[in-house]
Amino acid sequence: MAILVMKFGGTSVADLDRIRNAAEKVKREVEAGWKVAVIVSAMAGETNKLVGYVRSVSSLYDAREYDAIVASGEQVTSGLMALTLQEMGVPARSWQGWQMPMRTDAAHGAARIEEVDTAAMLAKFEEGFDVAVCAGFQGLAPGNRIATLGRGGSDTSAVAIAAALDAERCDIYTDVDGVYTTDPRLEPSARKIERIAFEEMLELASQGAKVLQTRSVELAMRYKVPLQVRSSFSDEPGTIVCDEEEIMESNVVTGVAFSRDEAKITVQDVEDRPGVAAAIFGPLAEANVNVDMIVQNISDDGRTDMTFTVHLDDFERARATIDGARESIGYAGLVADRDVAKVSVVGIGMRSHTGVAQRMFSALANDGVNIQVITTSEIKVSVLVQRKYMELAVQALHAAFGLAGEARAG
Amino acid sequence: MAILVMKFGGTSVADLDRIRNAAEKVKREVEAGWKVAVIVSAMAGETNKLVGYVRSVSSLYDAREYDAIVASGEQVTSGLMALTLQEMGVPARSWQGWQMPMRTDAAHGAARIEEVDTAAMLAKFEEGFDVAVCAGFQGLAPGNRIATLGRGGSDTSAVAIAAALDAERCDIYTDVDGVYTTDPRLEPSARKIERIAFEEMLELASQGAKVLQTRSVELAMRYKVPLQVRSSFSDEPGTIVCDEEEIMESNVVTGVAFSRDEAKITVQDVEDRPGVAAAIFGPLAEANVNVDMIVQNISDDGRTDMTFTVHLDDFERARATIDGARESIGYAGLVADRDVAKVSVVGIGMRSHTGVAQRMFSALANDGVNIQVITTSEIKVSVLVQRKYMELAVQALHAAFGLAGEARAG
Repeated sequence: MAILVMKFGGTSVADLDRIRNAAEKVKREVEAGWKVAVIVSAMAGETNKLVGYVRSVSSLYDAREYDAIVASGEQVTSGLMALTLQEMGVPARSWQGWQMPMRTDAAHGAARIEEVDTAAMLAKFEEGFDVAVCAGFQGLAPGNRIATLGRGGSDTSAVAIAAALDAERCDIYTDVDGVYTTDPRLEPSARKIERIAFEEMLELASQGAKVLQTRSVELAMRYKVPLQVRSSFSDEPGTIVCDEEEIMESNVVTGVAFSRDEAKITVQDVEDRPGVAAAIFGPLAEANVNVDMIVQNISDDGRTDMTFTVHLDDFERARATIDGARESIGYAGLVADRDVAKVSVVGIGMRSHTGVAQRMFSALANDGVNIQVITTSEIKVSVLVQRKYMELAVQALHAAFGLAGEARAG
Repeated sequence: MAILVMKFGGTSVADLDRIRNAAEKVKREVEAGWKVAVIVSAMAGETNKLVGYVRSVSSLYDAREYDAIVASGEQVTSGLMALTLQEMGVPARSWQGWQMPMRTDAAHGAARIEEVDTAAMLAKFEEGFDVAVCAGFQGLAPGNRIATLGRGGSDTSAVAIAAALDAERCDIYTDVDGVYTTDPRLEPSARKIERIAFEEMLELASQGAKVLQTRSVELAMRYKVPLQVRSSFSDEPGTIVCDEEEIMESNVVTGVAFSRDEAKITVQDVEDRPGVAAAIFGPLAEANVNVDMIVQNISDDGRTDMTFTVHLDDFERARATIDGARESIGYAGLVADRDVAKVSVVGIGMRSHTGVAQRMFSALANDGVNIQVITTSEIKVSVLVQRKYMELAVQALHAAFGLAGEARAG
């Protein structure tokens, strides 16, 4: 049985017309011979309305009740999508998370999927149903209660269902038409990427290209489910996110990511001894501060400086935490800079090509952009720059790595 | 375990403030020592919105999808009510129809309850939960799908849950403060009835006093669950609907009911032979026309007239049906009157008191109201009158049977 998964986000099912538009896409795939699992989000705005109700009632709400309330949005869309398909002559029915069931752990509000039972769905495909419309974002937790997967969880639902159904591909329909070499609002010559590896997509997603939920990409990578990011409002092919082995020829750099709202903290003159990093980053972890880049200067006299970056939202909490741990860390002073941004180049080609970092630094130097902090991973080089240089840095790097050229071959 | 059931309709949970108001009533009962099952409807307007979606998508919709969509309204309210109670310090959780489960038959959209499994709910009461908030109007049909009970089904849910939990009483909170001797908008001296027998309530409900769903009263009568109809917006006691044995002293007549929109059809000059009634009412039943009063005139020459009433909404369909069956019935003509109304007096005291019909006819004659058709049952006498006399007839009968007097003793 050849199965395709199609996922439609909130803006793609925002009203009855858009649901009909999405259903027409589904119908075309059915006519092409696929059995289709359609995963739907709540109608745009609905989840926010329901979350608003919950927050008005209670600040410290019971996450199990939150889940029962909020999951109703996808329940409505799944039924409406099934009816719309039926009306077009396509045999379809809706599936709630508890009906499949999609079993999750007990972490209500941010549950993890443990198992998708597809036996009942497959039996219905065999019986002649062409489409299973699945309510996204929700599953069944221990104790027979509805659990939601956290915001944006419908992408994750779609990938998990695709993996469990052994689907050929999981198409994520959204309001952008693919993954771009960088944000076209910053660099008009940015172009849509035809194929991108899971690892690259993960780096881009976590670096700020908010097209796909990081969780869903991780899951797709683990189960080798090819994804396609494409637009609900056109028929153009989108971007395929797949295993790197399925990409014939890799550019050295695939895309330029950026994160505008960063902050940098330097803990000055700490003792250069085992355990000092733990003394700094232990309290930050306990305070739920997500630390990104970390650099330790070379020690000269047994003392050193430790610099790290956090998201601007976490900045005050981070500073207060370090202040509070002053005695146990033992430092001379704190220097903070709330005026920084991070720019990264990402590409699996880096593994086999040297000189990427060098080319990056030259390009930035040519445009007079000063680099404050550098970190590297196997397929990524990131630099921290003053925020006002961010846009310039993105454009310089996009040009330096030839990203405005022709689309990469599939 | 002393269990109370409290049911709140759509206007009683129309917004977060009203949910809080309802929750305060629940809290008071918990403080008085009860374990409480709260049955909630959808927020007022929500069900209509969802039904509107369904009808826009499809005129001949799949009732299973309709049910999945529409049941979401009660899901939201049940979660919000549970959260509101928790916020007040009352241990509560929500229960969807499929979670209890409340099992129904497969008649989606108008399902009948087959069994309410209370084991899980009772176990939670034992564990320390004081309140089970149950989504009304819905259950679990064969095939693991959501079934709704039809409009107003939350009353029926409440009574079924009360019966299954062996509850002391089922309080139906609504926007009126009880059952009245007649509609106070027609007769300002109408008064609230303290206690009324199930049978009387059934006659009043089906005669037009739309306070409780007929189905829920039938169910309460079968399982001897005392009901109380009371207001969400005051603390006054309402009307107890109970077994007639629990009513010490019965008035002969308890209330005056009326139904404004009736129509009368007379099939003239049919042969007075066995099977002629079947020839008329068979086709009407097949056409789903609900026939109310039926009178056959005395035959003189082997021919007779047959008169019946239907609701005005069914009138055109009824007339067309009789037209279509003209040959098999064999009649001379049809006389139709769309300008009639029905007025009834109801009371279990009639069983042991004679002369009720006579007193009714005299009262109407004194005010010059002509009676067109009469039907009687054990505890009811109904007359058909010209519509413009309906209000006068109601007032005359309310006075004639002394209903404006003191409240009937409990």
